[in-house]
Amino acid sequence: MTKRDLTYITATEMAGRQREISVAEFFLKNRHLLGFDSRAKALLTTVKEAVDNALDACEEAGILPDIRVHVIEAAQNVYRVMVEDNGPGILENQIARIFGKLLYGSRFHKLAQSRGQQGMGISAAGMYAQLTTGKSLHVISRVKGERMASELYVSVDTTRNKPQIHGKKKIKWDRPHGTWIEAEMEGRYQKGTHSADMYLKQTAIANPHASFHFEGPHGEGITYQRSSKQLPPPPVEIKPHPRGVELGRLIQMLNSTRSRHLLQFLQNEFSRVGPKTAGKIIETAGRGLTERSLPKRIAHAQANALYRAIIKVPVSAPRTDCVVPIGEQRLLDGMKKEINADFYIVKTRPPAVYRGNPFQIEVGIAWGHAGGANLAVDKTGHINKVVQHKRDAAEALILHADEPAHLLRFANRVPLLYEQGGCAITHAVLQTNWRNYGLKQPKGALPLAPMVILVHLASVWVPFTSEAKEAIAQYPEIIKELKLGLQACARHLAEHLRRKTRLQNEYEKRTHIEKYLPHVGIALQDILRLSDAQRDQAVSKLDDALHKSRKIK
Amino acid sequence: MTKRDLTYITATEMAGRQREISVAEFFLKNRHLLGFDSRAKALLTTVKEAVDNALDACEEAGILPDIRVHVIEAAQNVYRVMVEDNGPGILENQIARIFGKLLYGSRFHKLAQSRGQQGMGISAAGMYAQLTTGKSLHVISRVKGERMASELYVSVDTTRNKPQIHGKKKIKWDRPHGTWIEAEMEGRYQKGTHSADMYLKQTAIANPHASFHFEGPHGEGITYQRSSKQLPPPPVEIKPHPRGVELGRLIQMLNSTRSRHLLQFLQNEFSRVGPKTAGKIIETAGRGLTERSLPKRIAHAQANALYRAIIKVPVSAPRTDCVVPIGEQRLLDGMKKEINADFYIVKTRPPAVYRGNPFQIEVGIAWGHAGGANLAVDKTGHINKVVQHKRDAAEALILHADEPAHLLRFANRVPLLYEQGGCAITHAVLQTNWRNYGLKQPKGALPLAPMVILVHLASVWVPFTSEAKEAIAQYPEIIKELKLGLQACARHLAEHLRRKTRLQNEYEKRTHIEKYLPHVGIALQDILRLSDAQRDQAVSKLDDALHKSRKIK
Repeated sequence: MTKRDLTYITATEMAGRQREISVAEFFLKNRHLLGFDSRAKALLTTVKEAVDNALDACEEAGILPDIRVHVIEAAQNVYRVMVEDNGPGILENQIARIFGKLLYGSRFHKLAQSRGQQGMGISAAGMYAQLTTGKSLHVISRVKGERMASELYVSVDTTRNKPQIHGKKKIKWDRPHGTWIEAEMEGRYQKGTHSADMYLKQTAIANPHASFHFEGPHGEGITYQRSSKQLPPPPVEIKPHPRGVELGRLIQMLNSTRSRHLLQFLQNEFSRVGPKTAGKIIETAGRGLTERSLPKRIAHAQANALYRAIIKVPVSAPRTDCVVPIGEQRLLDGMKKEINADFYIVKTRPPAVYRGNPFQIEVGIAWGHAGGANLAVDKTGHINKVVQHKRDAAEALILHADEPAHLLRFANRVPLLYEQGGCAITHAVLQTNWRNYGLKQPKGALPLAPMVILVHLASVWVPFTSEAKEAIAQYPEIIKELKLGLQACARHLAEHLRRKTRLQNEYEKRTHIEKYLPHVGIALQDILRLSDAQRDQAVSKLDDALHKSRKIK
Repeated sequence: MTKRDLTYITATEMAGRQREISVAEFFLKNRHLLGFDSRAKALLTTVKEAVDNALDACEEAGILPDIRVHVIEAAQNVYRVMVEDNGPGILENQIARIFGKLLYGSRFHKLAQSRGQQGMGISAAGMYAQLTTGKSLHVISRVKGERMASELYVSVDTTRNKPQIHGKKKIKWDRPHGTWIEAEMEGRYQKGTHSADMYLKQTAIANPHASFHFEGPHGEGITYQRSSKQLPPPPVEIKPHPRGVELGRLIQMLNSTRSRHLLQFLQNEFSRVGPKTAGKIIETAGRGLTERSLPKRIAHAQANALYRAIIKVPVSAPRTDCVVPIGEQRLLDGMKKEINADFYIVKTRPPAVYRGNPFQIEVGIAWGHAGGANLAVDKTGHINKVVQHKRDAAEALILHADEPAHLLRFANRVPLLYEQGGCAITHAVLQTNWRNYGLKQPKGALPLAPMVILVHLASVWVPFTSEAKEAIAQYPEIIKELKLGLQACARHLAEHLRRKTRLQNEYEKRTHIEKYLPHVGIALQDILRLSDAQRDQAVSKLDDALHKSRKIK
């Protein structure tokens, strides 16, 4: 045997090398896919996953969320991230699987609006912590009504994607209910657009019913108080709409249904299909199918005919009451609370549908000016300078006149901080012609303006471009709705700006005239031999006439 | 109980909703992550996954690949994709798992250069076929040396990620060995940059040792003959380099090793660690660790010290002979065969390392002119027009002067056809200042030139940005090597272009002089009273003098 022969392998040798890959191993090796590609991003992703879970849990249980995030520097490049909520707590026998197993969760198999949809985020954070520091996830949870809390140390057995428990006991905990988790990991704590602070600030805007308290590694603390005591309506689960089904999926549904006959099947498994529509579908399908056909006995050719009939027969659009927007008033309150600006406008679009999935778009714009004073007209018609009030010294969203607008993207109330370039929201903003609304906009870029553009997409299934859930896929229906929302806000902004420009012009003209009024007074005094008091009275009258005659709309 | 109480749920109810999500279900719902987001892309991805597997199998078995791809339109928007190879075949008991289970394969758990690395692609194609048409994957495979072939129909049980076999038998097959697969799916067959044709054309460039035959749905056939009979060296597996290890991974390795003591462990589990380096690491770690310490008994604090020592102690760079480039000559041959141009240059960079993983960059440039004739100097010093020879009427890579250069991206010899904008290769091309080399380049864009830029990255682990393997992540080490490769080629191109410009100028000058030579002849004839023959002789001598005196370099 030559050397060359030894290096090549046969089919049998190749078979011996085939192995199963656990999903945990897969995502450990490809952890950038879940948002753990750098130290800074890993820390942020951990905070994000924990807070998103906490918000979902509180809302599903009907509790106004109180969430505390604490980040401590444990060693150089090593951080402890702690997140606590006042949610309903987690049953002890579920804790290990929720935190120690990828692809385990309650939200993947249903169509309902929620932040989490994959059952991966928090276990992935635990896995990353374990990979970089060797430490398990530390969890304390107390279920509402129970006397004691459960404390567990959980890690992921990555070769089998199974949870490992390293310690479990009942402890006393001074909270009546809720969950506390701690992860120690390699990380980097930073400020700015991709920071935990920014994530919480934006989360507070989109979740005005929640309170957040953040404590950073340098002892700094920020509290975001709730501005509303009203919980958003709990998410409603819907059935798939016939428009979104595929043939193979239909065959699968026929095989696994509990419905005893076809008429029942169509009504039970799809939304918007009543007995009349179901009957029409069966009639259109033909091929010997009847209302009484047994779903499990339907042959491939029949299923194909049924599929074509489902596509052909008109069905009402999906119900959209399952999508819960933030709402114009609450979003406005949230923006006013957290963004320092002069002018705010918010629009919530009516619900729409992509690939059978209902969704809804909300757009808000906050316009500030680039420092200096602002102008306002008082009741007497006088224009006054209003000095801008400073609110937050550590304000992250400072508005500059000649810099690109800040774009805040949200999906199901979760801020999206990465992958701005690949997101449908960004594309819609770039495709909007802001010059039509009086703004500067370099070709193919964000408008240059002292402005925050906030966009929220709510849906029962947000089409993210990756598991890290950082950007929304560019479905044409979504882009269209986004643009309509942006245009509606931009029209109001343009009106505001036109008014502002008129005010500025008028202010300048008047300042000009006012400058000469005293000289006119002196001239009049000279010609008409007026006393000083008469002169001043004349000037004052002229001034009044000036402000009354030049009306401002 | 009020209506409101009914819609919220308790911790116990929530626990009842928790469910395991199979990885197959996950990727079925998120199939865009694996490249099945549109009909056109689904068809291409299927061809790609099948061909990549075929090439890997042939090369590992030391067989020169002969691959046939056949696409048939079965119904409107429904295609049958068939791919056949002359590889070593697959053992019957492996077929179901290879084609009917996600995350099953031979290449995930090792560090060795190969096209496949996840064990997902072809099963995902089968799953997509099944979803859209309800049809199973049809597989025939004959193992080298066996008398009969195996024929199976395989699908994925998505709720459990387990293969389902719908028919299995032994059949006669006229091929001595190899595998044939057929998938029937919703798809769209298209031409152009994102087509199966383009994928095969580019694959032929990067794999000059392989032959391909493609038959499209309209009966069109294209054959790409191999230009080399030499197989690339078989992939060599390497151990992880100490520089790339993380603490948690080290702890995991300590727990699962078969090495009996620490000195052995360090040498066996890492590349580039000999007894001397291993001893030094243990000494640096301290904390009571000795060469004889039992790996499984090492405490967390000790592991941490060991980890810090591993980072601190100098270790030779990773071995790089495990990375196999295409090679300058073979890549040049491949480009000449498939791209119609005037000038070609290829550079293979020396191997480099990112995060402990060796990789190597190759860059090629093909420069064509925008139609018309080309100029060349013959032995006598005359400049002649050379008419461009047409090669391929269906030429997909037509070169235009004022259009952006074509960029062909490859990773481990696989063409990357999507996500060009998000790829490290594209970023390196955009960051290169092509104006330095005499080309037009709009800001932040590809150079405008009749040019193909080909870039290949070979690595034991290609850092893709998504499971669909369409773009390479932007590691600084990779970007740096890419730019060096691009610059080296660009310098040669610039030299060629300068020479070309000189030739053009000279040609124009001579044409100008030559135009007047007959008139000079007539004037001379007139003044010196020459015969017609003498006049012609004088003109001819002047012409010779002209070409000899004006030397061209």
